[in-house]
Amino acid sequence: MTSIGLPVPPGFTITTETCQKYNQGGKRLPHNMMNEVHRHMALVQKETKKVFGDAENPLLVSVRSGAKVSMPGMMDTVLNLGLNDEAVEGLARQTGNKRFAYDAYRRLINMFGDVVMGVDHHRFEHAFDRIKNKYGASVDTEVPEEGMVELVEAYKEVYRSSVADPFPQNPFKQLELAIEAVFKSWDSERAVIYRRLNGITGLIGTAVNVQAMVYGNMGDDSGTGVAFTRNPSTGENKFYGEFLINAQGEDVVAGIRTPKPASEMSAWDKKSYSQLMKIKTTLEKHYKDMQDIEFTIERGKLWMLQTRTGKRTGAAAVKIACDMVKEKLITEQEALLRIPAGDLTQMLLPSFDPAKKEISRVLCKGLPASPGAAVGRPAFTADEAVERTRAGEKVILVRRETSPEDVEGMHSAVGILTSTGGMTSHAAVVARGWGKCCVAGAGDIQINAEEGSFTVSGRIFHREDTISIDGSTGEVMQGATPTIEPKLSGDFAKVMRWADKYRSLGVRTNADAPADARRAREFGAQGIGLCRTEHMFFEGDRIVSMREMILAETTSQREAALEKLLPYQRDDFIGIFEAMKGLPVTIRLLDPPLHEFLPHDADAQLQVARQLNIPVEKVKARVERLHEMNPMLGHRGCRLAVTYPEILKMQVRAITEAAIECTKRKVRAIPEIMIPLVGVKKELELLRELCEETIRETRQALEFTGRVEIKIGTMIEIPRAAVTADEIAEVADFFSFGTNDLTQLTFGYSRDDSGVFLPEYIAQEILVVDPFQSLDQTGVGALVEMGVERGRKTNDSLKLGICGEHGGDPSSVHFCHKAGLDYVSCSPFRVPIARLAAAQAAIMHG
Amino acid sequence: MTSIGLPVPPGFTITTETCQKYNQGGKRLPHNMMNEVHRHMALVQKETKKVFGDAENPLLVSVRSGAKVSMPGMMDTVLNLGLNDEAVEGLARQTGNKRFAYDAYRRLINMFGDVVMGVDHHRFEHAFDRIKNKYGASVDTEVPEEGMVELVEAYKEVYRSSVADPFPQNPFKQLELAIEAVFKSWDSERAVIYRRLNGITGLIGTAVNVQAMVYGNMGDDSGTGVAFTRNPSTGENKFYGEFLINAQGEDVVAGIRTPKPASEMSAWDKKSYSQLMKIKTTLEKHYKDMQDIEFTIERGKLWMLQTRTGKRTGAAAVKIACDMVKEKLITEQEALLRIPAGDLTQMLLPSFDPAKKEISRVLCKGLPASPGAAVGRPAFTADEAVERTRAGEKVILVRRETSPEDVEGMHSAVGILTSTGGMTSHAAVVARGWGKCCVAGAGDIQINAEEGSFTVSGRIFHREDTISIDGSTGEVMQGATPTIEPKLSGDFAKVMRWADKYRSLGVRTNADAPADARRAREFGAQGIGLCRTEHMFFEGDRIVSMREMILAETTSQREAALEKLLPYQRDDFIGIFEAMKGLPVTIRLLDPPLHEFLPHDADAQLQVARQLNIPVEKVKARVERLHEMNPMLGHRGCRLAVTYPEILKMQVRAITEAAIECTKRKVRAIPEIMIPLVGVKKELELLRELCEETIRETRQALEFTGRVEIKIGTMIEIPRAAVTADEIAEVADFFSFGTNDLTQLTFGYSRDDSGVFLPEYIAQEILVVDPFQSLDQTGVGALVEMGVERGRKTNDSLKLGICGEHGGDPSSVHFCHKAGLDYVSCSPFRVPIARLAAAQAAIMHG
Repeated sequence: MTSIGLPVPPGFTITTETCQKYNQGGKRLPHNMMNEVHRHMALVQKETKKVFGDAENPLLVSVRSGAKVSMPGMMDTVLNLGLNDEAVEGLARQTGNKRFAYDAYRRLINMFGDVVMGVDHHRFEHAFDRIKNKYGASVDTEVPEEGMVELVEAYKEVYRSSVADPFPQNPFKQLELAIEAVFKSWDSERAVIYRRLNGITGLIGTAVNVQAMVYGNMGDDSGTGVAFTRNPSTGENKFYGEFLINAQGEDVVAGIRTPKPASEMSAWDKKSYSQLMKIKTTLEKHYKDMQDIEFTIERGKLWMLQTRTGKRTGAAAVKIACDMVKEKLITEQEALLRIPAGDLTQMLLPSFDPAKKEISRVLCKGLPASPGAAVGRPAFTADEAVERTRAGEKVILVRRETSPEDVEGMHSAVGILTSTGGMTSHAAVVARGWGKCCVAGAGDIQINAEEGSFTVSGRIFHREDTISIDGSTGEVMQGATPTIEPKLSGDFAKVMRWADKYRSLGVRTNADAPADARRAREFGAQGIGLCRTEHMFFEGDRIVSMREMILAETTSQREAALEKLLPYQRDDFIGIFEAMKGLPVTIRLLDPPLHEFLPHDADAQLQVARQLNIPVEKVKARVERLHEMNPMLGHRGCRLAVTYPEILKMQVRAITEAAIECTKRKVRAIPEIMIPLVGVKKELELLRELCEETIRETRQALEFTGRVEIKIGTMIEIPRAAVTADEIAEVADFFSFGTNDLTQLTFGYSRDDSGVFLPEYIAQEILVVDPFQSLDQTGVGALVEMGVERGRKTNDSLKLGICGEHGGDPSSVHFCHKAGLDYVSCSPFRVPIARLAAAQAAIMHG
Repeated sequence: MTSIGLPVPPGFTITTETCQKYNQGGKRLPHNMMNEVHRHMALVQKETKKVFGDAENPLLVSVRSGAKVSMPGMMDTVLNLGLNDEAVEGLARQTGNKRFAYDAYRRLINMFGDVVMGVDHHRFEHAFDRIKNKYGASVDTEVPEEGMVELVEAYKEVYRSSVADPFPQNPFKQLELAIEAVFKSWDSERAVIYRRLNGITGLIGTAVNVQAMVYGNMGDDSGTGVAFTRNPSTGENKFYGEFLINAQGEDVVAGIRTPKPASEMSAWDKKSYSQLMKIKTTLEKHYKDMQDIEFTIERGKLWMLQTRTGKRTGAAAVKIACDMVKEKLITEQEALLRIPAGDLTQMLLPSFDPAKKEISRVLCKGLPASPGAAVGRPAFTADEAVERTRAGEKVILVRRETSPEDVEGMHSAVGILTSTGGMTSHAAVVARGWGKCCVAGAGDIQINAEEGSFTVSGRIFHREDTISIDGSTGEVMQGATPTIEPKLSGDFAKVMRWADKYRSLGVRTNADAPADARRAREFGAQGIGLCRTEHMFFEGDRIVSMREMILAETTSQREAALEKLLPYQRDDFIGIFEAMKGLPVTIRLLDPPLHEFLPHDADAQLQVARQLNIPVEKVKARVERLHEMNPMLGHRGCRLAVTYPEILKMQVRAITEAAIECTKRKVRAIPEIMIPLVGVKKELELLRELCEETIRETRQALEFTGRVEIKIGTMIEIPRAAVTADEIAEVADFFSFGTNDLTQLTFGYSRDDSGVFLPEYIAQEILVVDPFQSLDQTGVGALVEMGVERGRKTNDSLKLGICGEHGGDPSSVHFCHKAGLDYVSCSPFRVPIARLAAAQAAIMHG
């Protein structure tokens, strides 16, 4: 900011490399670092004409972390550094404000004690409460000068008794300890968790900024504020901030006092406000992005303390990116890279249906801190939120305020509700960054965390009471309010058009029913990459015939049952082909083990026996015979087709008949038959022959001579299939990497069972992310690359896609682009994410 | 044989390439083939001075298959080809023996009808029976001339009514059809099964030998025989054969008449016998191996019809190889290559304890056709044997005689017992090839296959009665006779010494107990490659403490229970270290999921609750919580150590204490700690640290400062571990490929469940062999190679081994040698096999 001519207090930066050296060198400060610090401090002294630790004209500094990626609240800050028993008097004389000087000193002891020396901050709070009581003060500004002097003594005592050493009087010692504390905080548990939750990797450490202090707490002509250059919730190009008169920066962020909106600032200090507006424009021109700024007005002079790229919701990211292209600040490509693809989810998620919101159920209104609609039960501590979420509950974290220690609980909750704090409070900023619903500063709510309840408008809510919070309006409602589907903005459509222009990777969807197929098509899906057929056998009468088929004792009995299923299957496929007309539909043949279609409890077995008019013992015996120790590794997928070819024949006949029927109706059907779980070339070879024979027979039976082209391919989901892809590709028209199963087998993790140890694995950082959420590029990815390379080697017209849930995960989409796949396929709601991620991958990797 | 001057009837050979062309060309004979046949037949006619199909001086030929590998009985043969209604009279005149001529003709019609045209052979047999009855003949030689003439008419009628065409009178038509039948038989079900069972691959087809006929059935100065140049059962250098007077070759092999031993031949035809003895020596000198020969004496003149390398038992293979080295016929390396490594199993298997054989239980005595001791229940058809074996029963196939159609049933039975047929009958030859116990020609036994029983010495035996058969003595006994361990011959030891001289691959054993370890050491194991620790927790009181550990609710309760297990574990390890002193012992830490240690039925759960004095609900709840959908992919292996580090600590402490105790006792212990189921580098890194820390602590606690070096490594059994072996090798001292689990995960086959579809997969030739028996080199092998290559890339001192059951499978051992592993580890009994296979691999691949 200094280089673009903005008013910034003088200071210097200790680089991230120094932090790395510190961490690699056994947590010791590099030996010449403090010499460098002395040299730079001399320059700051010269510029400010003050002297660090001086009894007459003391220079005070702030020490802040400066990581490359903004991690709000994660890294520790110490203000007012350089004060000691002598300098505080000098500051008092210099400013003519003894109360201010002692207020600054008590803040230093408090922050230094808490952040640098690990003193329990409650002990400082208790000491403060005693002083407040003594002077009958309800807020800290009401404590008079003598109270502040007493408070400093009390704080020094807290410090001494906790640290077993007096508060350090040497300012350079203070500085050294503070710098080290910033370095240490890089590896603190909460910083590590934050980076993990946000997928921040590849950084080497934090920088440290040492800057001369300016004071927002020097009286009513002083103040401090934080602001975003545009609205971080909606993206609207409107300055959006908050300020507090006579306060230091951390008062705003910590949410202890509720600040005023920036719009009111002009009335208080017109000059500073208009200067700030100019600076806002300068900053956006310079950084070409929305900024999150921190400023202080010291006795009428505006100082800029910090600027960084501001966090924003998905909707805001889309709007800001589009607006900035219009404003010619950035290009379309830059705009696309600006929008975190995963954040689009927020825009696609439902919101509360305004028509069904009952006014009588609205309990109170807080600040609309992060948009969204959350329904859940209150949890009162972060740990509780984590635990209950793990147990499968949906919880809303209800807190007076949140702090960095709470991030894990905040992340696991479906929404966050705080009773104090503003739009830029910790809760608000963090929630917005995640696109998680948050209502902040709902002051009417009185929380009793110990009892596990909160009270609002005279009513009391406990852990078992469901509430709804609306992050777009700030409303808190009792019970579960119904939600509606989102309407997508014109900007959203524009971003999608740009994405399609730049991406080379196709995007398909996983859909089993016409309605899903239609929705995905609206979201821009270019085909169905995975149409599972097993769900089709559960509806109504079908399950009866399906069970009849499974319980059949001879092939001909089985064929008779399959004959009954055929019309259902055919109609299913006609519906899907019509929904996707002109686009390819990849149909996976029956995959799950047969036991999944039979009931396992005695009553239901009896019912099945009655329905099919067979003895119940037969049903039981079949269920037992079908029981497997490890069904995931059992008789399923194409293994079923090998042992019961008549099932495959029925399905292929249904597909062919449906395609022919569509052709007759002038609907272009492009079915692709996908054989699941192939591990050996011969499996696919045999089953491909059987499919082709069935297609031929079906055409002949219907006397159809028109054009119906059906590709036949396989899923690559068994490690052996990836390894022997060269062989398999010789008999496949396409491969679709089934990365769900491939991940299970490559890691040897059952998705059903790994819940017992996976969280522990992630907590211990054995795994960085859950490999079922984001593709493990080192291991599973290596097999995918092998499959691509070997498959293309023997079949250069091979089409390649992916149809695991990874298809909608941005980093996995990047991987797929780099691996040279033709398309990804994901659930309908993730199609826009995949389109954007694919464009970003194309722009970044070419 | 012609080229080394032996008396061979003139003929020619149609190549295997022609067979391949036939099979690839849609089962049509190459168009110019018959022209070539005509050309060669002209040469044969010239040499024999006979004319094919001539009414006066007819040339007859045999048509036989000639595959590269001997497949006894698998390929079809037609004799006496060229006879028709005119030529038969010519033959009668030419030989002055009308009965002989018509006997030849009826044989032709029978064989041609059966083999070439697929006529049910029972129809011919019924016709023969009618003639025999008419003439009161009990055996075929008693049927007079006029009977034979009648029989030919009857056979022609059988042929006509079955084929709907008269028997072909054109001899070249006969020849063409016969050649085609040989080609077709290459792909017949039984040939395919035989090749599969014997692991014969890489062949393109069969050749066809067309040869002028010579007759062993021209009267009492004629005969036919088969022989081995050495004893194929024991390897003794003694001519070993059988002959029949006045018979054609197939009469011996089919076991219809019981032939005489070769030793009696000299008395019947001294000249031919001494000629045969000379030929025997010539053949062995030429082929440098024991030969299986077929000969015919036509009116006092000896003709050699066939020679091929003879099948033999494992013991015979060892003896013959050693003898031939002594005789300077072959080198040590050649000798090693001669012995099929897998056949050594036979020599290591138990035999009946002579001390416990009760004479009173011996029912009868047949021929000792193939050594071994089999105990099982009779099965009367091949299908029955297959089915009952699949159901888990041990069966002995009891048949009058066996035929190529029976091979699958013979293979599945534990032993074979026939009531007719000699030492070279189908049953004997096939069983010997497999090293399967066989008693042949036990003529006292009367079989009633329809009723499912046999009678011997007035007693009747049914399907549920256990019998014992001794393939080394020919005894058939009632009940189960006890067995004893084998004594290994000096030749065996010699072969093992040679093997050790030539192999570069180490051989270790899988053993969990001192007794197994000692036995394996006797068999030559160079260490333990896999010592599983889970079995150690089941004995006596241990299981109580183990359950206490699993049911513990806090870490300290768990530690208390583990403290009780520690002394047991320590003593286990001391025992094993003492047994293996000076050799490495790789100990795998606890691997199976914890639920395996808890009972699943209510009664046993109640007992556990009482033993541990806790409510039974707690036991039930824990069992339920431990239940997994796919335990193979669940909470096991190193995942247990990550979540319950105290279990690992106890085991490592026990290992360290045991090693220290051994060192104090002057026993050199070389423990290697193996962490199972690693898939991610960080797992091993963390657990390695924990092991090292525990080792340090244990040393300190015992104040031991001496030398105890403990390597720490991992199993590579998760596909991801193979793929990321470069990363994992950075923190491993050794890799041991756990190819059992690696096969499960690479194929996605659960060993517990794949029994439902694997047999079908092998039957349909989707898989050539069961990948759990022989390593799948294409898929699983590729991952092993990847693991080796990548592991060595980052850690060049990495030790590499394999510890799946594949370590004792010869072809897998070859693979391991080529892949560059340091050692294989297998069960104690397979150690000699692995040593030999390793030597063979080194000789073959360098």
